[in-house]
Amino acid sequence: MSEGEIIAKYFAPLARDNSGAFGLRDDCARFTPTPGTDLVVTVDAVAEGVHFFSNDDPEDIGWKALAVNVSDLASKGAAPRIYLLSIAFPEEPEPGWLSRFSRGLDQAQSAFGIVLAGGDTDRRPGPLSITITAIGEVPYGAMVLRTAARRGDIIVVSGTLGDAALGLKLRLSPELARPWGLDDGDQDFLRGRYLRPQPRIALAPAVRDFASASMDISDGLAKDLDRMCRASGVSSHVRFADVPLSRDATLSEVIVAGGDDYEILATVSERNLSLLRDAARALGQHLTPIGMIDEMGAGVRFTASDGELMHFSALGWDHFPAT
Amino acid sequence: MSEGEIIAKYFAPLARDNSGAFGLRDDCARFTPTPGTDLVVTVDAVAEGVHFFSNDDPEDIGWKALAVNVSDLASKGAAPRIYLLSIAFPEEPEPGWLSRFSRGLDQAQSAFGIVLAGGDTDRRPGPLSITITAIGEVPYGAMVLRTAARRGDIIVVSGTLGDAALGLKLRLSPELARPWGLDDGDQDFLRGRYLRPQPRIALAPAVRDFASASMDISDGLAKDLDRMCRASGVSSHVRFADVPLSRDATLSEVIVAGGDDYEILATVSERNLSLLRDAARALGQHLTPIGMIDEMGAGVRFTASDGELMHFSALGWDHFPAT
Repeated sequence: MSEGEIIAKYFAPLARDNSGAFGLRDDCARFTPTPGTDLVVTVDAVAEGVHFFSNDDPEDIGWKALAVNVSDLASKGAAPRIYLLSIAFPEEPEPGWLSRFSRGLDQAQSAFGIVLAGGDTDRRPGPLSITITAIGEVPYGAMVLRTAARRGDIIVVSGTLGDAALGLKLRLSPELARPWGLDDGDQDFLRGRYLRPQPRIALAPAVRDFASASMDISDGLAKDLDRMCRASGVSSHVRFADVPLSRDATLSEVIVAGGDDYEILATVSERNLSLLRDAARALGQHLTPIGMIDEMGAGVRFTASDGELMHFSALGWDHFPAT
Repeated sequence: MSEGEIIAKYFAPLARDNSGAFGLRDDCARFTPTPGTDLVVTVDAVAEGVHFFSNDDPEDIGWKALAVNVSDLASKGAAPRIYLLSIAFPEEPEPGWLSRFSRGLDQAQSAFGIVLAGGDTDRRPGPLSITITAIGEVPYGAMVLRTAARRGDIIVVSGTLGDAALGLKLRLSPELARPWGLDDGDQDFLRGRYLRPQPRIALAPAVRDFASASMDISDGLAKDLDRMCRASGVSSHVRFADVPLSRDATLSEVIVAGGDDYEILATVSERNLSLLRDAARALGQHLTPIGMIDEMGAGVRFTASDGELMHFSALGWDHFPAT
């Protein structure tokens, strides 16, 4: 298959509802912004062996590559609009792989309300890698930053944390199911949370209206909250017992340092807390207060229910760990 | 260096003039489109060993990674605005490399009037790869497509063709300078055309006002004109002797099949030809008519000055050559 045939057969159908994609027959896409909006733009790459396994289902790979980008948009209060797909194959891809991969993308874009606009198909050595640029829209001036957390703000998170990290551990060591007391349904749930993250698009309007700062949790609660605090010039305090879990937390470090949650981490003034939670509830979503932004400086403290400071050996994923 | 330190030290300065980049401390960028415009969006990746050499000057690598994307925008009639940089390192990059690479990007973005908005820094095996997403603006409805070439249109190209392909050959085999009769100045010129492409941003307004179809030439005249013809459902005829060259063409195949020209290939109705060329001239640019869009169907014919059909063994670069 030539590059053109791959694009025409597997990727052009993903752009069928986008007149600005020109059937992927142009080298650029056109997008007409809604008047009165700001664009929110993000890019994230996933690579075989780093972000996914060679033997993962290509449908899941496609879904996740798009989901991790849409999650960024949702956390900023943005509605997803278009995306570009840049994909590099180490060798000529199998039709079966392409077909399943594009089906996963198709499912994801339907679920998230976003559509393919263009991209780039390449062949080079190294791992299969997929770089997605996603563009969303917010009303003018309404993008929610990670840099705006303020002293006294309440820290909230959506959904439950740590499930994907447990799902990954199960993916690597299925025999853990027994000591962890997981039945088949539990295992499917945890693996699904790892393989098919569900960006909190529904929460975007509530975040936009009431949050002071927001980002998504992709590299673990501790690391991402630390990033938010550093970006905002504040420190924070998390009551570990309040972190929402889908099951009893026997693995504290997995909860704080495990990645791939793709839940929203936001801060909100005390005055707006109930407005934010009510708005979320009206959208069928749940936000849990887990702590507070408490002073100038930087850093995250976790305390146990007895008030003791908790120490963790690893605080999350970094591509370039300090040595 | 951590991922955060690399971003803060080498990439954040490239976003200094862009308030929507938030100092690269957020995971998304904000861009406020100019009212009444369409966005033109493109993505292109370059990788070590495929698009550039390991020992290329990092300044040139940075320049070229951005230039190839801006060239796409210019060919659509768009003014460059912002770009996102997704970069994957196989190992921890050297400070010296990062410093020179970001300097090359800085030179390019100043020259092209575009600014960094955000990105993604990653570490994975395989070649160093750089994926840039570029966004430009055109007045609403004014983007020039490659799909709109019409029978009777004149084919024009900017600048001179084949220089970069000759520059690449010289880069690989410096001893060719003597049989080709090139002095030091000639060699520098050809190598510069390969290493530092100059996107034809200045031509964008003229293309927008008068061209019927347009794209940039990145994979060689023959292949890219063929793509334009297929996308437009037409065929074309090029008078080889009219193809503008910076020196005597002794290497015909290099001219038609060599890549990296980053010149504009456009079509224009006979009625608008002189308007287009005059507008280009007023912008300090030169456009040369080289042939005609002549009938339904698809394909490109080249004829020599005696009217004989020319045959070439290779028609340009394809990442997935048909076997």
